[in-house]
Amino acid sequence: MTGVLRTIAEFRAELDRRRAAGASAGFVPTMGALHDGHRALIARAAAGNDVVAVSIFVNPLQFGAGEDLDRYPRDLDADLKVCAEEGAHLVFAPAQAEMWPVPPAVRVSAGPFGELLEGAARPGHMDGVATVVAKLLNAAGPCRAYFGRKDAQQLALVTRMVADLAFPVEIVPCDTVREPDGLALSSRNAYLEPEERAAAPALYAALRAGLDAFRAGATDPDAIEAAAAGRLAAEPRFIPDYVRLADPERFERPAAAAPGHVLAAAARLGSTRLIDNVML
Amino acid sequence: MTGVLRTIAEFRAELDRRRAAGASAGFVPTMGALHDGHRALIARAAAGNDVVAVSIFVNPLQFGAGEDLDRYPRDLDADLKVCAEEGAHLVFAPAQAEMWPVPPAVRVSAGPFGELLEGAARPGHMDGVATVVAKLLNAAGPCRAYFGRKDAQQLALVTRMVADLAFPVEIVPCDTVREPDGLALSSRNAYLEPEERAAAPALYAALRAGLDAFRAGATDPDAIEAAAAGRLAAEPRFIPDYVRLADPERFERPAAAAPGHVLAAAARLGSTRLIDNVML
Repeated sequence: MTGVLRTIAEFRAELDRRRAAGASAGFVPTMGALHDGHRALIARAAAGNDVVAVSIFVNPLQFGAGEDLDRYPRDLDADLKVCAEEGAHLVFAPAQAEMWPVPPAVRVSAGPFGELLEGAARPGHMDGVATVVAKLLNAAGPCRAYFGRKDAQQLALVTRMVADLAFPVEIVPCDTVREPDGLALSSRNAYLEPEERAAAPALYAALRAGLDAFRAGATDPDAIEAAAAGRLAAEPRFIPDYVRLADPERFERPAAAAPGHVLAAAARLGSTRLIDNVML
Repeated sequence: MTGVLRTIAEFRAELDRRRAAGASAGFVPTMGALHDGHRALIARAAAGNDVVAVSIFVNPLQFGAGEDLDRYPRDLDADLKVCAEEGAHLVFAPAQAEMWPVPPAVRVSAGPFGELLEGAARPGHMDGVATVVAKLLNAAGPCRAYFGRKDAQQLALVTRMVADLAFPVEIVPCDTVREPDGLALSSRNAYLEPEERAAAPALYAALRAGLDAFRAGATDPDAIEAAAAGRLAAEPRFIPDYVRLADPERFERPAAAAPGHVLAAAARLGSTRLIDNVML
């Protein structure tokens, strides 16, 4: 690995130099605190491209007031080790003053994605994601960019942004990586107390119950969501936020469930908010 | 000139090909109806770059309900002649279905630029400008992009967007081109009836009166704006919208006038809305 680049200019120049020599570029934007889900993204990028860049930037624009910006886990040395092990060639780790020397006046609006589900639960979150991803993609230049399906609404937003605004980028969705007990990997899992960690797989189990209902023939979104919500209610530590069927492109609730739709859920476990989803 | 490119993919590929061969790219985004102001932008781009691209696209996103989208002048053949004469190598003239196959869900928000002056007078206009320019810049790729100072608030918006979102683009401001009687060139001048055309130079004369007040020692924005507004009132055909001092970056009204500030005005002449500005 060539080391850590700290400025947009250096990052862009390095990728431009490699592209000019004929290399294809893979890009994995992250907030650090890298886990096996990120490892899978980086490994996938390394398998499909000549040069792989990972960005590590905890973006304050996508955290709301009272959210976990301050306690979000940060460990650059550990992250660099993960990047190197998985075959990344470049790490772009800008300081706040490099990414947002002043608060951006011109931002990307997530539109309807900012009003639905995660957007409704976290005002400003989706706009903050769209804005930072736009800036990171502009810094990276033409590339394939890898995003996990765990953040399905973010994936839908970024995919739509790239199409609507013609970024020279191909978005590559990557499957969620799970613990053996089903819990989706997330940097926020580190917040869980032991009893919470023990209860946490109930979220995925609930989504599986919804999926089972669909496989058993249910197509009414109410029925599928109710099957999942019922299973989630069996774990009293969870305070559900939503359990919702969504089409994978617009993230709107469909009239009838069909293969490819996403059953998404968010719920609180103590002070930690977890999200997960399954595809029908 | 190599002819007219109709798709984003062709436009990007052609500029990528030339950049890969070492060419620097100049880009002039327009809505067509090219006049001598556009000629100056294209000539400036041709003087500073190896390859020059002009885009011609009447962007519906930046027109409000009841505005002049339908009657906006369109003459592609005449525009292509202008482009060739001024040294453009490529013209990107996409159809609506290429640029906006569906209404974009993810858009660029002009932020405060969308609330001030032109933004206040034309709700949605500045967001529509930001969104289409972002898409055009993404299609063009790394380049110098040329914008006229006549649309000073648009220039400020685009300059800020490029900085806030790290587009790989240098924005080059170009001076306003005027008729011998002072009227700033605009595609919308074609709407003017003969008596309106005769009255139209009063807008620039009013701005010059404000500039004269500054040169005579006035620094109070009220005094400078009043000098301009007084002169504009001498032409009763004009219905003023605003006469306003603004700093050139944020387009906010300064506490005291200083060199580099912009005195901007908008006014209606019959059914035509004209804007103009001078720099102190």
